[in-house]
Amino acid sequence: MTLKLVIGNKNYSSWSLRPWIAMKAAGIPFEEITIPLEAPDFKARARAVSPAGRVPVLIDGEAVVWESIAILEHLAERFPDRGLWPGEPVARAHARSLATEMHGGFGALRSAAPMNLWRPIEVRAMPEAALKDVRLLMRRWAEARERFGAGGDFLYGAFCAADAMFAPVATRLRTYGIAVDEPTQAYIGAIHDHPAFVAWKKLALAETAVVPEDEVDWPVVKRV
Amino acid sequence: MTLKLVIGNKNYSSWSLRPWIAMKAAGIPFEEITIPLEAPDFKARARAVSPAGRVPVLIDGEAVVWESIAILEHLAERFPDRGLWPGEPVARAHARSLATEMHGGFGALRSAAPMNLWRPIEVRAMPEAALKDVRLLMRRWAEARERFGAGGDFLYGAFCAADAMFAPVATRLRTYGIAVDEPTQAYIGAIHDHPAFVAWKKLALAETAVVPEDEVDWPVVKRV
Repeated sequence: MTLKLVIGNKNYSSWSLRPWIAMKAAGIPFEEITIPLEAPDFKARARAVSPAGRVPVLIDGEAVVWESIAILEHLAERFPDRGLWPGEPVARAHARSLATEMHGGFGALRSAAPMNLWRPIEVRAMPEAALKDVRLLMRRWAEARERFGAGGDFLYGAFCAADAMFAPVATRLRTYGIAVDEPTQAYIGAIHDHPAFVAWKKLALAETAVVPEDEVDWPVVKRV
Repeated sequence: MTLKLVIGNKNYSSWSLRPWIAMKAAGIPFEEITIPLEAPDFKARARAVSPAGRVPVLIDGEAVVWESIAILEHLAERFPDRGLWPGEPVARAHARSLATEMHGGFGALRSAAPMNLWRPIEVRAMPEAALKDVRLLMRRWAEARERFGAGGDFLYGAFCAADAMFAPVATRLRTYGIAVDEPTQAYIGAIHDHPAFVAWKKLALAETAVVPEDEVDWPVVKRV
C-alpha cells in the first residue's frame, strides 16, 4: 500500500519539509497530498486526517502518524535498510538526540526567522535569544560532524533523518543572512545542494499562494 | 553492560520521571545516577555526561542519549520485547505521535503547573492557555483509550512509553486541583497507582533539597 504524506505549502511549512526530504533522500515512494495553509477550511481538512489538525501527517495503511519526529521514527522502523538513522548505534543515539532537540527547541530562532524560501536573501537583525540558538546549533553540528561525519558533507556521513530535521533551519540561516562560521556555511550549502532539497525548493518557488502573517494557526507561515 | 540513567531530583524533575518510570515499568535494569538540581556545579556535571547539559541522560555503553523521546525510542529499539510501545502497528503509530506531541507541546500547562510532588493538593487558578492544554489532553487521552485502550486503565492497554510521557502532567492535574472529567480522573488515578510511580513518589517525598524558583536553568523546578 502506498504511503501518503499530507503536507502544507512548500514555501512556508518547515515541518512538512522534514519528512518529505527524509523520504525523498531515502528513496521511499509516497503519494503527496497538499492542504494549502491559506485554505479557509485548512483546519477542518487537516483534522479529517489526524487529530492534531496540523501538517505533516503520514498515512501508512490504517496507521496515522503526526509530529515530524514520530513520522521519522515510524519510517525508520518500517524501512530499516533505508538509512533513516545512522547504522552505527553510537552515532544513531547521537542523531536521535539531536533530532529530538530540534523538535522541541530552538524556539527563539524559529520564531524570529520563519522559513520563507521566496524571500530574497537579506540580513535581518536577530534578537539575542535567537543568536544564542544559532551558537548552540553551530556547536551541535560541529560536534556531530567531528565525531560521526566521516569527513562527509552531512552530520553523520550520509544524509539522514537528523539532517532532515535541520533542513528548515539551514534555510533560515541563509535567508536572513545570519553570520555563521565556515564549517556551518559548508553544512548549510550541503543541505541546499542535496537533490531532494533542490526539488523541494523548485516546487516552493513555483507556488503562488501568499499566506499573510498570523493568517493560520501555524507558527512558521508568517509572510515577511 | 548495565545501562545508566542520569536524573535530577525526583520531586521536581518531570523530564527525569519519564524514562525512569518507563524503564521500571518495562523491567529494564539500570543504574541510577542523580545530579541534584540545586548543586552549584549541576551544569558542569550534566555537561560532563551529555552535550545538552541537562537531565535525563541515558548511557548505554558508548552510546549517550538525551531528550526523553529519544531515550524512549532508543530503549524501544534496544529492548523490542519489553512493550515500550504498543505491539500493534496502528496503536504504536498513535502512541508515538501522542508521546511526541507531549514532548514539544502543552507548554502553557507545564509552565503554570510545575511538577512538585511535595505540594499539598490545592486548587490553583490556571490561565486560559493552560486550560486549553487541559482540554486537549482530555481529548487525546479519551481518543487513545477509546480506540486502543481495550478497556484497561492505560492509554493503549498495558502501561507504555506514552503513559510514561504523560505521567508528570497527570501529577500536575492532581496537585493543582485542575477540574477534569471522570475518565481523565480515572486515568490520573491509574498513573498514580502504578507500582513504578508509587516507588518514584516515595523516593521524591524522602528528598529534602528545596530548589528555589529560577534557581536552575530548568523550567519545571520552580518551588511553589
